[in-house]
Parts: sequence; C-alpha cells; structure tokens
Amino acid sequence: MNSKFVVIEGLEGAGKTTARDTVVDVLRQHGINDIVFTREPGGTPLAEKLRDLFKRGYQGELPTIKAEVLMLYAARVQLVETVIKPALARGAWVVGDRHDLSSQAYQGGGRGVDQRLMASLRDTVLGDFRPDLTLYLDLPPLVGLQRAQARGALDRIEQEALPFFERTRARYQQLAAADATIITIDAAQPLEQVTGDIGRCVAAWLQQQEHA
Amino acid sequence: MNSKFVVIEGLEGAGKTTARDTVVDVLRQHGINDIVFTREPGGTPLAEKLRDLFKRGYQGELPTIKAEVLMLYAARVQLVETVIKPALARGAWVVGDRHDLSSQAYQGGGRGVDQRLMASLRDTVLGDFRPDLTLYLDLPPLVGLQRAQARGALDRIEQEALPFFERTRARYQQLAAADATIITIDAAQPLEQVTGDIGRCVAAWLQQQEHA
Repeated sequence: MNSKFVVIEGLEGAGKTTARDTVVDVLRQHGINDIVFTREPGGTPLAEKLRDLFKRGYQGELPTIKAEVLMLYAARVQLVETVIKPALARGAWVVGDRHDLSSQAYQGGGRGVDQRLMASLRDTVLGDFRPDLTLYLDLPPLVGLQRAQARGALDRIEQEALPFFERTRARYQQLAAADATIITIDAAQPLEQVTGDIGRCVAAWLQQQEHA
Repeated sequence: MNSKFVVIEGLEGAGKTTARDTVVDVLRQHGINDIVFTREPGGTPLAEKLRDLFKRGYQGELPTIKAEVLMLYAARVQLVETVIKPALARGAWVVGDRHDLSSQAYQGGGRGVDQRLMASLRDTVLGDFRPDLTLYLDLPPLVGLQRAQARGALDRIEQEALPFFERTRARYQQLAAADATIITIDAAQPLEQVTGDIGRCVAAWLQQQEHA
C-alpha cells in the first residue's frame, strides 16, 4: 500500500491527541511503522514562528483576518512542501494534527471569511494536494471548551466566544458531510467508545485501501 | 482632490528614495502636506517581522517560494488594511516605496511563480485596491546592482544572479506597458534628468487629477 496522509480534525478539547495515539496503534498493527507526525499551524521552525505570530501578534499588533489566513497558508505550504510531501515520497505515512480543514472551519466558518476566498486560496496554494483520510471529531463546543479549560490557559483562538465555535462546528459538519474522505466520529461519547469507533473506522479504511 | 496612493517601483539601486523625495516636493508645491510614507514588504511591526522572516528565514530555514509569496501578501494586506486605507480615508496621501507590482515582477517574473497564481492571489487578497499612480524607475539591472553594492551588504534577494533581475525587469516593463496608471521613468539617465522627468510627470498627473 502506498504511504498516506491521515489527519485528525476537531474543535479544542475534542480529543485529538488521544485519537492520534489510537490511529498510530492501528497503523502499527497493520505493519506501518514509519510514521511522521505533524501539527498545524506549525511543524517546521519557520511555520512554528508564523504560528506564534498568528496566535500572539507582534509588539501588540494582531494580524487582520486576511493577514491571519495568509500566514496560516504560508505555514501550511512550508510544511507541505518541506515535510509532508518529502515524507510521503520516501514511503513514510504522515499523521497530522489539523490541516486545511481547520482553516476552512475556523477562518471560513468561525470568522466568516468568504467561503470562495478560502476555497480559492486552498486551490491556489495547495493545488489538488489533500489528505487521504480525515477523522473529524465532532462534539458540542461547550463540552470541548470545558475540557480545554481544564488543561490550562486558553490562547487567542480558544478565547473566542461560544458562537464562534458553533459556527466553526457547523462548517466542519457541512464540509464533512460533502466529502467521502472525511469520517465523522462522535467525540461526545465516553472516551472508550470514541477510541473504539476510531479504531474500527481506521481498520476498515485500511482494509479498503489494501483491496483498492 | 481626493487623497491618492502613489507608489515608487523599480529594481534595487534604481533611485527609489530620491524619487520619493522628488514626489513629495511636487505634492507639497501643490499644497498636499498630509503624506503618509510606507515601504513594502513591511510598514507595520508585524509586517516588518514578516519581512525579516521572509528575507532571512528562521533558524536556518528559508521559506519555499510559495510560502515567501504568502508571507509577502500577509504583510501587504496587514499594511493596506491597518495603514494605507485608514490614511486615505482620513484624507492623507500615501507615498509607497514598493507595492504589489514588486511581487508581480520579482516573484512572478524573477522567480517564475505562475502569473495566474500571482494575479489570483492579488485579486483574492486585495480585491480591486490599486495605487492611483505608480512611477516605475526602469534601468539595466547591472547598473542598479552596482549602485546597490556601493551602498553596502546585499540581502538574500539582492544576492540573486543577474538573470533573475533581467526577468524581473522584463516583467516590470511588460506590466507597465499594459497599465495606464504606471508611468515608466528612464532611471539610467543622469540623476538631474531623472529628477526632472519625475517632477514633470507627477505635476502633469496632478493637473489631470484636478481637472478630472
């Protein structure tokens, strides 16, 4: 089987880290051991620096929403071209904590950036590069925020008001429903069930890929 | 007369700073005293930080060409939205050292980024916002580089080989020929003549604007 790019998506507190561990367990059970992990925005020194500028601003100046989107895409294309594509090319699998769907959901849905502008940027910057599989961890924003708050201080994005996250979730759900490569997981269930669902989904998908 | 956005463009060593002083002299002679200066890439703390990252990279990592273009547009939209448009809105004139034409010429022409991608990014990010007048200082790259070298150390862009600047100049010339808002100045002439040409061009343009 060719190497693949698998992405975990979802709101803050949805359980992305646990989900990643589950995905990796299943991959290893299927003999896949050469796995590169990425997180977005970030994943290279320059991309992490852009993440930091985007989250905290610079000398008291915050990016405008369009500047924010462009910084995110600069970080993303840097990661895709210098880490993700080279890893896939040498036969490694890539498991990503967030990718483009986050921008479509947070900036497009949450912040209300024009959907055509977001799609146009994605296509202009990434061409037809897309994850092979995306697991979208769906849960009510309030549940996720309470989990994220329990972890510690919230950053600029996490401090957005609840309606922002409702809009982000709605866009996630809308995009997931329209794309066969995105599997929605009910992340509001007890952790064991979430983990079980993820394990079964990934195993079934791997079997499909082997026979494709 | 409404406030306007005037931009000086050209290769390194073309004489942009002297040209700016000449433009400002002419504006003041016409009673225009509220003038905001910008330089690109940069012009705000965040945009200057992006300029620095784009020029020098970060922890030894240089941006890929697409990341470079996106960082430039992030810096540009930040400057346009937080400095240029507010200045114009309150009635100030804006005189810019470089603007979008530089990206079209350097990244599009010099580095060979697809022209449709560059145009698509410009339209996506800036909409129909354009300078009212651009003075393009045209000169052979070798002449400009010798002048720039005489000023001191060259940065990453200035260290490009001569063919890069030949391609950049060719794109500048091509775009200037196709756009009535761009006036080409022969910057290879002796300084006095260049200054005279700029003064006459700007004065004539101002007169046009007054009667428009």
